[in-house]
Amino acid sequence: MPAYKAPLRDIRFLVNEVFDFPAHYAKLSNGGDADPDTVDAILDECARFCEEELSPLNLSGDQEGCHIKDGMVTTPKGFKEAYQQYVEGGWQGLSYPVEYGGQGLPMSLSLIKTEMIGSANWSFGMYPGLSLGAMNTIMQFAPEPLRAQLMTPLTEGRWTGTMCLTEAQCGTDLGQVKTRAEPVGDGSYRITGTKIFISAGEHDLAENIIHVVLARLPDAPPGTRGISLFVVPKILFDDAGALGEPNHVVCSAIEHKMGIKASATAVINFEDSIGHMIGEPNKGLEAMFTFMNTARIGTAIQGVAHAELSFQGALRYARERRSMRALSGKKEPEAVADAIIHHADVRRMLLTQKAIAEGGRAMIYFAAQYADHMVNGILEEDQKKFELWDDKLGFFTPILKGFLTELGLEAANHGLQVFGGHGYITEHGMEQIARDARIATLYEGTTGIQALDLLGRKVLVSSRGKVVREFTGTMARFALERLRNPKMRGYSTTLARLAAQWNVLTMRIMLIARKERDIVSSASHHFLMYSGYVTMGYFWALQAQVAYDKLTDGSGREQPEFYKAKIGMARFYFDILLPRAQSHATAMTKPSRVLTRMPVDSFVFE
Amino acid sequence: MPAYKAPLRDIRFLVNEVFDFPAHYAKLSNGGDADPDTVDAILDECARFCEEELSPLNLSGDQEGCHIKDGMVTTPKGFKEAYQQYVEGGWQGLSYPVEYGGQGLPMSLSLIKTEMIGSANWSFGMYPGLSLGAMNTIMQFAPEPLRAQLMTPLTEGRWTGTMCLTEAQCGTDLGQVKTRAEPVGDGSYRITGTKIFISAGEHDLAENIIHVVLARLPDAPPGTRGISLFVVPKILFDDAGALGEPNHVVCSAIEHKMGIKASATAVINFEDSIGHMIGEPNKGLEAMFTFMNTARIGTAIQGVAHAELSFQGALRYARERRSMRALSGKKEPEAVADAIIHHADVRRMLLTQKAIAEGGRAMIYFAAQYADHMVNGILEEDQKKFELWDDKLGFFTPILKGFLTELGLEAANHGLQVFGGHGYITEHGMEQIARDARIATLYEGTTGIQALDLLGRKVLVSSRGKVVREFTGTMARFALERLRNPKMRGYSTTLARLAAQWNVLTMRIMLIARKERDIVSSASHHFLMYSGYVTMGYFWALQAQVAYDKLTDGSGREQPEFYKAKIGMARFYFDILLPRAQSHATAMTKPSRVLTRMPVDSFVFE
Repeated sequence: MPAYKAPLRDIRFLVNEVFDFPAHYAKLSNGGDADPDTVDAILDECARFCEEELSPLNLSGDQEGCHIKDGMVTTPKGFKEAYQQYVEGGWQGLSYPVEYGGQGLPMSLSLIKTEMIGSANWSFGMYPGLSLGAMNTIMQFAPEPLRAQLMTPLTEGRWTGTMCLTEAQCGTDLGQVKTRAEPVGDGSYRITGTKIFISAGEHDLAENIIHVVLARLPDAPPGTRGISLFVVPKILFDDAGALGEPNHVVCSAIEHKMGIKASATAVINFEDSIGHMIGEPNKGLEAMFTFMNTARIGTAIQGVAHAELSFQGALRYARERRSMRALSGKKEPEAVADAIIHHADVRRMLLTQKAIAEGGRAMIYFAAQYADHMVNGILEEDQKKFELWDDKLGFFTPILKGFLTELGLEAANHGLQVFGGHGYITEHGMEQIARDARIATLYEGTTGIQALDLLGRKVLVSSRGKVVREFTGTMARFALERLRNPKMRGYSTTLARLAAQWNVLTMRIMLIARKERDIVSSASHHFLMYSGYVTMGYFWALQAQVAYDKLTDGSGREQPEFYKAKIGMARFYFDILLPRAQSHATAMTKPSRVLTRMPVDSFVFE
Repeated sequence: MPAYKAPLRDIRFLVNEVFDFPAHYAKLSNGGDADPDTVDAILDECARFCEEELSPLNLSGDQEGCHIKDGMVTTPKGFKEAYQQYVEGGWQGLSYPVEYGGQGLPMSLSLIKTEMIGSANWSFGMYPGLSLGAMNTIMQFAPEPLRAQLMTPLTEGRWTGTMCLTEAQCGTDLGQVKTRAEPVGDGSYRITGTKIFISAGEHDLAENIIHVVLARLPDAPPGTRGISLFVVPKILFDDAGALGEPNHVVCSAIEHKMGIKASATAVINFEDSIGHMIGEPNKGLEAMFTFMNTARIGTAIQGVAHAELSFQGALRYARERRSMRALSGKKEPEAVADAIIHHADVRRMLLTQKAIAEGGRAMIYFAAQYADHMVNGILEEDQKKFELWDDKLGFFTPILKGFLTELGLEAANHGLQVFGGHGYITEHGMEQIARDARIATLYEGTTGIQALDLLGRKVLVSSRGKVVREFTGTMARFALERLRNPKMRGYSTTLARLAAQWNVLTMRIMLIARKERDIVSSASHHFLMYSGYVTMGYFWALQAQVAYDKLTDGSGREQPEFYKAKIGMARFYFDILLPRAQSHATAMTKPSRVLTRMPVDSFVFE
């Protein structure tokens, strides 16, 4: 397994030079403490923790996996100690209120932390990561004093939380949920049912686990309008937070999976377990989905994390492994052969990984600022502010989650490929990255669901194309302001053309959808991927612009090669990866007849 | 794991209706016995064996893996019995000479067999598959009586063979091979060295293993011109073939791999092991590569096999799993939700798999006829005939191997994706297919090596573009003859345009390469993928043409839906998948400056 080295230079480029986080934080009500020195220190310390403590456990965690015995799950060797350090470092509460024991810093810092932890050891990161999802929901919907009773140990990391949505018969289609909640009479409920695919559903890292559970009240209407949300602790606790009796929450199995093997994916049986409703009756799905945008960005980060880790491993190997001679002539004549980094096709794979990691990181950090505003809406109990920024974020969320996890998987596979046959061998850890990356397009809504959310809900139904017009407006302004700048002209021309095309495609689909509703499904994947490639193009152009500025005004004189590489990468992206957008543009408005009308019995003939 | 059902209807469509194998066999010197009834019976019996015996061992073989103890390798439960049945069925000798105990049938039947066996259980197929590689080399280069001594037990399957090329320091760059061969004086040699990644290098299926080994003579010149080829038996044998003493061929380890876990990948130490040279001194690489085309087509089949198996699994699941309602309206109103096959985006994934499996199969079967002629050149000891057909085949080989294995991996991942989160769970077997498929772009020459072989060797150096002109000539003739046929006009226009574009792109790269040699490497991947998409387009148009003919002339009246589905699939391919060729066309001639000139130290900044 490649040792993870946090890409601090690139992270700081985005934080300080591209997106000006110091200015952004200065405007946030909870940004006062996030001064540049503090942020710098957090980045350094987080990098150290990830490199020294988490990265060394990544390969061994995969090989050992989790164990289950009598309903108790043991995490791989070293995880417990690492989690203890995580708790002692106060990392779980980084972006959570001081009143619950957190550090009260902006949410974006938590997302950068998630990226580093996830790159070093994605399986480890799942335990505190799922807990953050539960915390967000509890923070917004649990009434006091329950909220404080739960939030304090969760923020401190003494307890963890889960999200219990999926059942055997349904994952996406949560209207099929069968788990029942019977009112006891004292305000609490008895929860009964079986949930599957519960990440961090059972483990040995924390004293208690708080499950956030979707279930049906006895009189609930069928379908999605009859789902309520409950918190169900693994172990009951009193008002002072002291743990008491077990709550009949039984882990009956953990799944055998392709990857993220150190993350326990549990089957959880609730057997008349005591739970408390949070949010309103029958409005559980809405409550559950409130933080969907942040949760999905958390998963989008997996694409960046695995692209980065696989790139680091492949780059080191490509500099060491010697095979053949470069076509342009011997590069290392004294050696038996040239290092494979001198072969253009190997470089193509490495640069593709790098373009995905750094382009994706820029997209995430951009969205992270929106998330800061959105979360502040909640903290300030300003519903309008929350909705405004949640809506803004909502357009990018499916693009980030859908597109970046698909490209993260591609990047992980490139890294494996750079190793040749050795990439297939477990000990190098490259195949683990590809296996770990594979989950990202499945959970937290498959790529297909992201695509439908983007095209169907966000673009067509909610905004009739307005969200596309807004973002392409930003792109077009950026492009038009730079059309006369000889260095940026190439990028600007392309971006202006794509901004127009994106709108035209949206309009065409909208028109076709009036007659043929299925186009929304048949075009959605291509629309998503097109949107992703174009959005990443914009953020690469933006990085190139900043790099040119730094070289021009002299402020980049200490490390000119860094900025030149950024410009080279932007060109690579525009030349080699962005053309893929055209194949998606071509495919998305083609007659969907075969897709929609091929008889089910014609898929195979025996 | 999805149960494999041999796609006999599609196989027979290609064999009888598209490529007219009966007429092809009638022209072959060894085709006399391959009459339609015999071929039919072979297909049926092979299908039965694969479905009933091999398919059930696929998931269990992955879960159990191979075991090593004291240098002895045990294959997973059931493999030994299945291999015994394979031997008793005479399957190994299907296309090998009757004088060695084979059935003397054309090579193409062996390739169809490889496809079925590989789809049912790729790991199992590796054991006899590698043996075929060794047999081909021995048959052409070993002198008598050694040839007959080896070929008879190998053809009968009592012994198996391997290809020992790779060493720890080199896979692609075989000029770095260090294994030594010391002449003993009696015509034999003592072989010493360590080979890695030896598929079927040690196992419990056969009495003896014949290793075909690349090694250096004491006076050999350095690099690729100093490599000779040897056969080294695991156990020595006398002139009558009776086994004697072990030959100091020691399996010191088997690899832990991402997939094909039931296939033993061995580290083999030769310790003064007795070997016999085959072919001429220092010309071992040429001899080894003689059958490279057939070996690579054997690997190309893996793309088709895993696309097919993953498609079958995903299709069954998509017809059963219920989630949400189709956008075009409820399809199964009485059920809790529609089967997911009614969602256009799920259909997109299924049809992509089907297009890859059936389009790839057509490409393989086309090439299999060339392989028949090539092999007959060897059997008839007609070097000119061999070279003619080997050359013809040589253009398609890297396209088939490179392109189809990449698309096979894509298809396997689509199948996993159709299962949603369940695809990530081991018990369904879909993730295994993705893991097994992952090796195919690595071994037998990575995709990058195929791309260089195609563009550098076959297209530019050997033929100065002539091979492209020849095949695009075939495409253009097909297209021009059908431009006035309203049903085929769409396909024909596109094919004619692509035929022209393929030549133009080839010319442009040839011109750029005069100044900038690195373009051959930087463009090679895109050239390969472009060539693959266009070639598959031609074979889909061909299938559509045959389907139209069958519907028009009434000969398809018994199963019109089959032919309509073929036409629908061709349209799907042209509408949705073929547009990808354009992104490769755009990328391949872009300035390769970033690819070739980015300083090694600029790939990362810390």
